[in-house]
Amino acid sequence: MLDLFETPNAEPEIVPVRKLAARVAGVYAAPSDHFETRAVDALAVGFEGIAGDYHAGVTRRSGGREPWYPRGTEIRNERQLSLVAPDELAQVAQTMGIAEIKPEWMGANLLIEGLPRFSLLPSGTLLFFKSGATLKIDALNNPCRQTGRLVAEQARMADQPAGALAFVKAAKRLRGLVAWVEKPGLIRQGEEISVRVPEQWIYRG
Amino acid sequence: MLDLFETPNAEPEIVPVRKLAARVAGVYAAPSDHFETRAVDALAVGFEGIAGDYHAGVTRRSGGREPWYPRGTEIRNERQLSLVAPDELAQVAQTMGIAEIKPEWMGANLLIEGLPRFSLLPSGTLLFFKSGATLKIDALNNPCRQTGRLVAEQARMADQPAGALAFVKAAKRLRGLVAWVEKPGLIRQGEEISVRVPEQWIYRG
Repeated sequence: MLDLFETPNAEPEIVPVRKLAARVAGVYAAPSDHFETRAVDALAVGFEGIAGDYHAGVTRRSGGREPWYPRGTEIRNERQLSLVAPDELAQVAQTMGIAEIKPEWMGANLLIEGLPRFSLLPSGTLLFFKSGATLKIDALNNPCRQTGRLVAEQARMADQPAGALAFVKAAKRLRGLVAWVEKPGLIRQGEEISVRVPEQWIYRG
Repeated sequence: MLDLFETPNAEPEIVPVRKLAARVAGVYAAPSDHFETRAVDALAVGFEGIAGDYHAGVTRRSGGREPWYPRGTEIRNERQLSLVAPDELAQVAQTMGIAEIKPEWMGANLLIEGLPRFSLLPSGTLLFFKSGATLKIDALNNPCRQTGRLVAEQARMADQPAGALAFVKAAKRLRGLVAWVEKPGLIRQGEEISVRVPEQWIYRG
């Protein structure tokens, strides 16, 4: 809640670092020519992301998410992996009136359970995987119409264009996060994750 | 201020995207073997940071800031450039009882003016430089004893070990930010910067 008596330039409330625990509930990879992913036992991640994957690369081409650049501008790739949470997918499915949404339909690489409000983990959160890899959260993944179309198709919705739009609306702040590889290593199905949420505050500058 | 009546898992307050304007008040580079920087007219930045610079690289070796890794672990380099603000440096100098702190002493690459509480800009903030480069803010730069020693030395403080410690304390949340290159290009002395602060909220998961 906004404090109406807050003084401009006052030191904001600093929320301390938090350590949380989570678990890898699913691991998925995409062939290099395909957005949708398939379940695998483990992923080997490097500084370029998942080698050979659709979203691999130290750099990527800008698109609709970066309207400030001409489409296709080469920028650093902070969107190497897509992470989603089972409770959030269930919530989106319920709002859309469909039985389920599978992580594979959305091109997700990791299904992560055990963290409430997963999509709201802040930028800079570190995920340390027991097998050795570390991911760093870039940002919330905003749902797009393209993913909505795939979900509507896979769920065999009667009105697919309406289903795609319903997904974009229902999945706002529930479509997970994108992350890049801070430290190469393995990520295995079922393993534990130590999560480090950095200090937080609101900049009102 | 923390709302004591806040419900766990309630949707947090979302502070909308903000657009701000700033100016490059100084540009500095470091020779590859040297922490301290020198004033230059412009910097050409690429995906590795400032070519040939002390902090250049797509990856870097971990140190005391990453106590969760064995020292020297190769990790992605999100600390390519160091950014500071003139009003914050003046405030740190005043607290330390010295006349000034020059950006060069701290190994800064950019002196940026026009943004209140510069060091508190959140992770993910984008800085669009008129000459073409884009930087993305990784995080607050925590002041360390090594930089404190350089500042105490350059300021010719009588008690240098005490001066180094005084810097670490005085510069907390006033020592600027670290950033990486999202889009290669030039950064010129005196030019304008468009700043995009992303949506903000506090994760209380």
